Amino acid sequence: MTVTAAKGFRAAGVAAGIKSTGKRDVTVVVNDGPSAAAAAVFTSNRCQANPVIWSIKAIADGSISAIALNSGGANCYTGDFGYETTALTAERAAELLNLQPSDVLVCSTGLIGAGDEVFRQKVLSGVTEAVAELADDVAAGRNASEGILTTDSVEKLATRTGSGYTIGGMAKGAGMLAPGLATMLVVITTDADLESTQLDAALRAATAVTFDRVDSDGCMSTNDTVALMASGASGVTPDVAEFTELLTDLCAELSKKLQQDAEGASHDITITTVGAASVDDAVAVSRAVSRSNLFKAAIFGNDPNWGRVLAAAGTTDAEFDPQALDVTMNGVMVCKAGTPFESIDLVDLSPRETEVIIDLHAGEASGTILTNDLTHDYVHENSAYAS
Amino acid sequence: MTVTAAKGFRAAGVAAGIKSTGKRDVTVVVNDGPSAAAAAVFTSNRCQANPVIWSIKAIADGSISAIALNSGGANCYTGDFGYETTALTAERAAELLNLQPSDVLVCSTGLIGAGDEVFRQKVLSGVTEAVAELADDVAAGRNASEGILTTDSVEKLATRTGSGYTIGGMAKGAGMLAPGLATMLVVITTDADLESTQLDAALRAATAVTFDRVDSDGCMSTNDTVALMASGASGVTPDVAEFTELLTDLCAELSKKLQQDAEGASHDITITTVGAASVDDAVAVSRAVSRSNLFKAAIFGNDPNWGRVLAAAGTTDAEFDPQALDVTMNGVMVCKAGTPFESIDLVDLSPRETEVIIDLHAGEASGTILTNDLTHDYVHENSAYAS
Repeated sequence: MTVTAAKGFRAAGVAAGIKSTGKRDVTVVVNDGPSAAAAAVFTSNRCQANPVIWSIKAIADGSISAIALNSGGANCYTGDFGYETTALTAERAAELLNLQPSDVLVCSTGLIGAGDEVFRQKVLSGVTEAVAELADDVAAGRNASEGILTTDSVEKLATRTGSGYTIGGMAKGAGMLAPGLATMLVVITTDADLESTQLDAALRAATAVTFDRVDSDGCMSTNDTVALMASGASGVTPDVAEFTELLTDLCAELSKKLQQDAEGASHDITITTVGAASVDDAVAVSRAVSRSNLFKAAIFGNDPNWGRVLAAAGTTDAEFDPQALDVTMNGVMVCKAGTPFESIDLVDLSPRETEVIIDLHAGEASGTILTNDLTHDYVHENSAYAS
Repeated sequence: MTVTAAKGFRAAGVAAGIKSTGKRDVTVVVNDGPSAAAAAVFTSNRCQANPVIWSIKAIADGSISAIALNSGGANCYTGDFGYETTALTAERAAELLNLQPSDVLVCSTGLIGAGDEVFRQKVLSGVTEAVAELADDVAAGRNASEGILTTDSVEKLATRTGSGYTIGGMAKGAGMLAPGLATMLVVITTDADLESTQLDAALRAATAVTFDRVDSDGCMSTNDTVALMASGASGVTPDVAEFTELLTDLCAELSKKLQQDAEGASHDITITTVGAASVDDAVAVSRAVSRSNLFKAAIFGNDPNWGRVLAAAGTTDAEFDPQALDVTMNGVMVCKAGTPFESIDLVDLSPRETEVIIDLHAGEASGTILTNDLTHDYVHENSAYAS
């Protein structure tokens, strides 16, 4: 149930001493083929980490045979030295695997600005060690997924089975979760036989409605990467629509797991806007609510403060009549047509799963954002991150 | 040093029982002329409270003789009944002061959705009581400023003296502080003799660079109003440029006081972007940083995490080369040309006053946003607001 679930893939995760905790921090995933088709999407943050700058070039030809990942340092804003570290990482993996450096994607996650000579040497020796331990079993896949975790409390894995082929994925991310993408690394493998252009289309369709709609704290990372590699080892060329659907479903499961493990959160809030004139409008309203600290703090306090939902909706340019809005919280319509309706005393916000529905009464489209509440623990964990 | 500092104004603030604490919660400010020229700016939130909907119509003719304000309830999303409450408030004040209801501006602040019959009766009797207590002395001005406070811990007052005339103002606001405007009510009075169009131009110029650049928590209120009334009682028609400068200076002082009293904050953060291609670019970058919860939590923890500054800057479309950015925190340039520079250990974030400077190296323009850190107390105060 991880990146080694599909045929044709080996993986390993090792402890290279980058993390002070001694946990696994370097992961390598290899596609043994016969195909090396791949696709990847990256953060839309203009301030990109060195591994992202490298990987955008590496994926340009639609072919990737290995991914080297490290946690414990983002290698972002580390200057020319940092970019050289990324290049050396790809070169080390390529040399050991008999590939070209441009066949190797590189991903890093951790603190921005960290990435000195000591960091470089640990990453490089970690790659060497990981390549030596590559295996195609479940344990190897789990070790690989451990190696990419930072403040995550659990591994995030998912698999799907199609008609004669498998898709498996692993994700990391526990904060800085915002669209385009989140502070997350995701590696997805499949033994289906598809062209890189098909993989690319499927991946963009899937991430647009899954990872791009997790908005834990409105903060967009510099390192986000979602990579998909297809070995073709199953010998099956699937129906692209079926593959896209399964891939989307797998990405949705990983997205939910990211939300559920968001730093310090005590509520997983699903915000759905319905009755919108367009999907863009629906997503804009749901996202605006998901970014209201006042709303998120209220949910933390189990307070169904629907005024804060409307105040956030009012900051968007979505099509709606402000006096026509309904708000439903955990099944109770607390506001109907812009007026208090059912009593807020009926709203039970004690469960972790929280649902907010906003009806714009402006059309037929809908859109959902997954977010979290704003808690003491969120503040604490993020005030101590670099210390 | 308040709204009664300028000649021609009387004010009062009374405890009408809207606030459960028994503190003053209804305020009336009256302009006795000879002029009734006025201007006002309102929230850009599309979900407007009833008093805002009323007041936009009332100010349309550039003439206002009284303002009735209440705290303890926002009268927003209270339906037709709520709008009627606002109209009745204006009618009550008008009747007692021998004015037309359309000469009366109405402002409310407090919880959205609250505004039942009991609330209405308390506001109306409060207006009656306040009109009976109207006076032009300092004590009356202070009572008036107390009557508009919600979670504010201190009154926010400022005055300026021009060539033969005076400007005085009072403000409330301690959260939901974001542009266009903040969750704030501001009443400014002057005995200068100016046309309403001149007042309007001066007020818009002043608020654009003051109240609109306080962004405490990214949350935009439904009730914000800044009103300026000119009695002309000094007999002086000032130079408009001088008046605008003094007014801007007064608004800047009140803005700083709003920032300093933001709910639960432990740092007042001034974020200035320099070297920008335009003021809009500079403000966009400063604002993006001011809205990063990760950055704000780091400052709470006295952690000079400049990576979070750059990650926020990267979400804007301001003109810059991501590898050319400098970041200076409390005088220490921690990042130069996108690379770590001076040691973060040199940054002392223990003072409440915190300064972050981002140099885009893309032009000559600059722009500042005033914000606060994200603290345990912010979460606590805003999770308990409605309870």
